[in-house]
Amino acid sequence: MQFKLPKTPAVSVKGKDFKLADVDPNDITPFKHKPDDKDEAGPRLLELRKRLNDLQELLYAEHKRSLLIVLQAMDTGGKDGAIENLLTGVNPAGVQVSSFKAPTSEELKHDFLWRIHAQTPKQGHIGVFNRSHYEDVLITRVHGLIDEKTCKQHYHDINNFEQLLLNNGTRILKFFLHISKKEQAERLQARLDDPAKNWKFDPNDLKERAYWDDYQAAYEAAMTHCSSGDAPWFVVPANNKWARDLAITEIVVAALEDMDPQPPKPDFDVKAQVIE
Amino acid sequence: MQFKLPKTPAVSVKGKDFKLADVDPNDITPFKHKPDDKDEAGPRLLELRKRLNDLQELLYAEHKRSLLIVLQAMDTGGKDGAIENLLTGVNPAGVQVSSFKAPTSEELKHDFLWRIHAQTPKQGHIGVFNRSHYEDVLITRVHGLIDEKTCKQHYHDINNFEQLLLNNGTRILKFFLHISKKEQAERLQARLDDPAKNWKFDPNDLKERAYWDDYQAAYEAAMTHCSSGDAPWFVVPANNKWARDLAITEIVVAALEDMDPQPPKPDFDVKAQVIE
Repeated sequence: MQFKLPKTPAVSVKGKDFKLADVDPNDITPFKHKPDDKDEAGPRLLELRKRLNDLQELLYAEHKRSLLIVLQAMDTGGKDGAIENLLTGVNPAGVQVSSFKAPTSEELKHDFLWRIHAQTPKQGHIGVFNRSHYEDVLITRVHGLIDEKTCKQHYHDINNFEQLLLNNGTRILKFFLHISKKEQAERLQARLDDPAKNWKFDPNDLKERAYWDDYQAAYEAAMTHCSSGDAPWFVVPANNKWARDLAITEIVVAALEDMDPQPPKPDFDVKAQVIE
Repeated sequence: MQFKLPKTPAVSVKGKDFKLADVDPNDITPFKHKPDDKDEAGPRLLELRKRLNDLQELLYAEHKRSLLIVLQAMDTGGKDGAIENLLTGVNPAGVQVSSFKAPTSEELKHDFLWRIHAQTPKQGHIGVFNRSHYEDVLITRVHGLIDEKTCKQHYHDINNFEQLLLNNGTRILKFFLHISKKEQAERLQARLDDPAKNWKFDPNDLKERAYWDDYQAAYEAAMTHCSSGDAPWFVVPANNKWARDLAITEIVVAALEDMDPQPPKPDFDVKAQVIE
């Protein structure tokens, strides 16, 4: 690990024997609040947001390195909410959020990393991926669109691709928002029950839900094959939204603190400037 | 005008005899606060932000139309601050901020709208331009890089281009953040006086400042040639940051209210869905 991890319920994926089932989606330790005590997280979150805002400005001022944040989850896992929460108070001019849906016919004419590469954050910026290149070892694998050999090749390609970004000064943090199958049922039901949320419901989500265990296995395999000290995967217990958001923000701030971006020294004589 | 304008200090540009000098950069009427009473703007701003957040979600849900917000200003005019303020509380996944700097050599191989077109907001999204295609009738005109005839042609091209976007369901709002020359001097000096702000200072800004009057004339010409009811220019008095931010947010919310985005009706039988 390249930086000292803050204490959160999130688990960093290390070693080939990592099991997703060992992580409790309801876990909120060591946060010192009760599950329904979400306002208690408020003061710390406000403190972190202020620090994040400052660090982002420094990253932008330095204009040498960048940060890539990848978010993956099962349907209703909370990617949109987590992104909205994380970026509250962050200057939108220094952030780019990219959502990867089913590839277009044009995108399918290229290798699977082509459309991803085009969206990587430029110097001084924070890039957030809502879904990512990992879909190509998840949905494709679950539905048998790629065989085992191709999947292994994809893991290898992903690791090499992330190494290229790392070599160029991009720090990478990858988060899997970990909800329980029961929690997903409740969130889907809420989308059906509230007419204002109907548009968020897609009957296809139910078909995908039937493959729950296969997805969990595919995530486990992808994370164990593609997690390194420089580009770690974090499994974030995400049944409690406040704990999910606090954990992610803690880790992002800690990573930026570790990067310690510095604004450039002026290349002109500050005292000689006269404003007329 | 396609929508009822809220009462703000901003002036919408109408008619060929519009004069920038007639707009006072310090104006805060009809806001009912004193210039230094910035916290008074707070409650209304919070109310507007909540409404903006709701309207953006509806625009996203509808997924048919989009909103393009163009920001232009003299150096230190407050584009970055205004964007950060406007987008506070807006879901970043539905917004794209594009900053247009000096064109790259690749961009210069195309017409001046090529790089702009590539950044226009897609359906359901809000796009924010920090500088824009208008630079091609401002800096180029002030420095004599284009002649009068080319400039006129550019106005024409811009109007046709914006009409294309309008035809496709993109609402366009254009804001000129109007500061005084004295205010610019103070803001530039602040960047020199505070070492933490030195990186924001560019000695070239002083060279451009010498062309202040030429820029004001170029803005006046561009705005009178390229302001229409469907794609209006607003001159926003911007010496007081809180009044600037409140005015912009009022207008953006009013435009979205007028668009009145509607989430799509479910194309499946909601009651027939069973979550197992």
